[in-house]
Amino acid sequence: IADRDILFLRHDVARLHESELGDLIAALLPEQRIALISLLGDDFDMTALTEVDEAIRLEIFEQIPNDKIAEAIGDLDSDDAVYILEDLDEEDREEILAQLPFTERVRLRRALDYPESSAGRRMQTEFVAVPPFWTVGQTIDYMRNGEDLPERFSLIFVIDPTFKLLGAVDLDKILRTKRQVRIEEIMRDTSYPIPAEMDQEEAAQLFEQYDLLSAAVVDENNRLVGVLTIDDMVDVIHEEADEDIKRLAGVGDEELSDSVVSIARSRLPWLFVNLLTAALGASIIGLFDHSIEKMVALAVLMPIVSAIGGNAGTQTMTVSVRALATRELDIYNASRIIRREAGVGLANGLVLATVMGLVAGLWFGDYQLGCVFAVANIINFLVAALGGILIPLLLDRSGADPAVSSAVFVTALTDVCGFFSFLGIATWWFVLH
Amino acid sequence: IADRDILFLRHDVARLHESELGDLIAALLPEQRIALISLLGDDFDMTALTEVDEAIRLEIFEQIPNDKIAEAIGDLDSDDAVYILEDLDEEDREEILAQLPFTERVRLRRALDYPESSAGRRMQTEFVAVPPFWTVGQTIDYMRNGEDLPERFSLIFVIDPTFKLLGAVDLDKILRTKRQVRIEEIMRDTSYPIPAEMDQEEAAQLFEQYDLLSAAVVDENNRLVGVLTIDDMVDVIHEEADEDIKRLAGVGDEELSDSVVSIARSRLPWLFVNLLTAALGASIIGLFDHSIEKMVALAVLMPIVSAIGGNAGTQTMTVSVRALATRELDIYNASRIIRREAGVGLANGLVLATVMGLVAGLWFGDYQLGCVFAVANIINFLVAALGGILIPLLLDRSGADPAVSSAVFVTALTDVCGFFSFLGIATWWFVLH
Repeated sequence: IADRDILFLRHDVARLHESELGDLIAALLPEQRIALISLLGDDFDMTALTEVDEAIRLEIFEQIPNDKIAEAIGDLDSDDAVYILEDLDEEDREEILAQLPFTERVRLRRALDYPESSAGRRMQTEFVAVPPFWTVGQTIDYMRNGEDLPERFSLIFVIDPTFKLLGAVDLDKILRTKRQVRIEEIMRDTSYPIPAEMDQEEAAQLFEQYDLLSAAVVDENNRLVGVLTIDDMVDVIHEEADEDIKRLAGVGDEELSDSVVSIARSRLPWLFVNLLTAALGASIIGLFDHSIEKMVALAVLMPIVSAIGGNAGTQTMTVSVRALATRELDIYNASRIIRREAGVGLANGLVLATVMGLVAGLWFGDYQLGCVFAVANIINFLVAALGGILIPLLLDRSGADPAVSSAVFVTALTDVCGFFSFLGIATWWFVLH
Repeated sequence: IADRDILFLRHDVARLHESELGDLIAALLPEQRIALISLLGDDFDMTALTEVDEAIRLEIFEQIPNDKIAEAIGDLDSDDAVYILEDLDEEDREEILAQLPFTERVRLRRALDYPESSAGRRMQTEFVAVPPFWTVGQTIDYMRNGEDLPERFSLIFVIDPTFKLLGAVDLDKILRTKRQVRIEEIMRDTSYPIPAEMDQEEAAQLFEQYDLLSAAVVDENNRLVGVLTIDDMVDVIHEEADEDIKRLAGVGDEELSDSVVSIARSRLPWLFVNLLTAALGASIIGLFDHSIEKMVALAVLMPIVSAIGGNAGTQTMTVSVRALATRELDIYNASRIIRREAGVGLANGLVLATVMGLVAGLWFGDYQLGCVFAVANIINFLVAALGGILIPLLLDRSGADPAVSSAVFVTALTDVCGFFSFLGIATWWFVLH
């Protein structure tokens, strides 16, 4: 690729879909990326850059003069343009905006004025809207002549002269209706107009719940300002699920292209917090150092209690966190789910503790130790089950994101309880005996 | 609701969106569900049942005679009908299918013949297709008169007399083109026809990568058999992300409405596997029981080594598993990512181990113990980082799903290495001294 065979490149690369081109760019070395883009020249589809990581995109933009960027951005759909502009620094952004035609500049600036991750940022500002008194025929003729229509659309909005949203008509409805029928007769309610300030995650949930393909975005006066389409929401849904997975493991919004230092720094706080909880567990062990000195078997078995309790707690917690995120779990069924989790914890606790107690008893040739071990495990299973559901619920109720901090609290709880119940019961039992 | 106020119910409930009705059904008690459905009678929208858990759906169907179900299924879109039918047992399914009109029965049976979770199961068998020699005018007239058109569509397929797929036309293209133009002049390639046997997850990835709104589903002879739409794929994307999260924690495909016994049973194998890895860790500790007897501080500190190592490994593993699932991580960048993770592990290991060594040294008033503790932690951080990326990569290469089993192996590795390096170094160091 790097041998500058322009004809080959033009022919092959220009035919790629934007997302394939994005993958290609991400796979290249930094110098090759710039070389590729400058070789392709006007054939380069800027949309591909919306498909690569932020770090790569910013690196590429540093190498390209702002007026070239402005030119390329002028050709993009407004939602892609906003996506690229929002990551640039203030100065570059202003310089690029200044070089765009007036209407385009106003549109983009309005979208950029909405808060980050809001529906207003993700919306497309190009849409098709007609007055209610037009006929189907007029509408079709308008679209046949229309110059500044968006590239793709599946919905026509109906608005009054002040841009207030009155309704919408699906394209298939238009096609099925006779030319002389008036739009207002066939328009339907736009049941779920999305306020531009709404968080994109909430908007995505509306799309998912109501199987929407596109939705009107309105400002505070119910005036139509843009349209959100499902393909943008698919990305949001994916991102949000991804975030949940990573937060549960204490990994931030890192990307594969981030540097060692930035990743190490972003993961460190979580490890530090976990170190504190581990130290808490260790201090519990410290309380019982005399018991351990007398009976080393306790030291051998105690990590098993906390590890299995931690696993059981994580299972319950994962289910709870996801059910909260998808709103399947709410106050109406919380008490039923709590009872159910307690039941599951008790059932699995009894099964596993019996096995564990038998094995431990045989291992150390001490059936009393086996019993103590089994009882401690049953207690820890119950604690794990209740903690696994109650901690996410309480965090959610108090307004915190349960995905972020549940794991720390659940692990701390199962560690402390596991060590305390096992070492505590053992100390009490064997000292008395 | 249960006081049978039919007028109120009809008015309020019938106006709900199908997914809201689904939520309502899920929130009710079993008896209330049946009462609600029988009270609503023909006003009840069967689609709502596609929105509730499988367990609830089956429970409801047991109470409703098969001929009523058949009647209701006849009104559904084919993809919703398949979704409901696939969970029923063989016998009920045949009885219901037998009561459907011939063409509908053939269609549904063909969809049900495709493997579970395939594109053929999720597709809609209703679609609009026209021959290439028709004009735009003919097509519009056909749609205006068309009786058996699907409820919603955004794409018209172009086929030859044997149903072979030739191309597709978007509705907005039709609306923008003059009546006398022939369809073949404006049709575009259906760039990504989806084989009916393709797994739904792969199909969803195609939708996501190429921002598709709908795609043709073709059989092995490239004949058009149905259409997949993005709203179905959104559900698939969500389900798959959900599965990944839950698999990482060893939770199966359980649903909130499942019973205690079935959940307990599905979570047990994972806990059992983890018990084995915990026992492996414990047996390592058993090797060093004399060292612990002489120096109880080792027992206090050793769970910290394995806990922090486990956390660091889980961070790396979560990122790797997700990157593999979204195909961001592949053979082209694997070696770069491995080096990066090793770097992150070493960096965080050095920072945390220094802190931990100092604190441990002060706690037990033994700076040599602090040094040993720090060194063991640095080693375990490196092992955790390499294990966190190599284990998912190897599992993926060998054809296993890295989300399912990575966590077990990573935890086993960090436990064993953590205990072994800490207790081993301590034994060697303090015996020599």
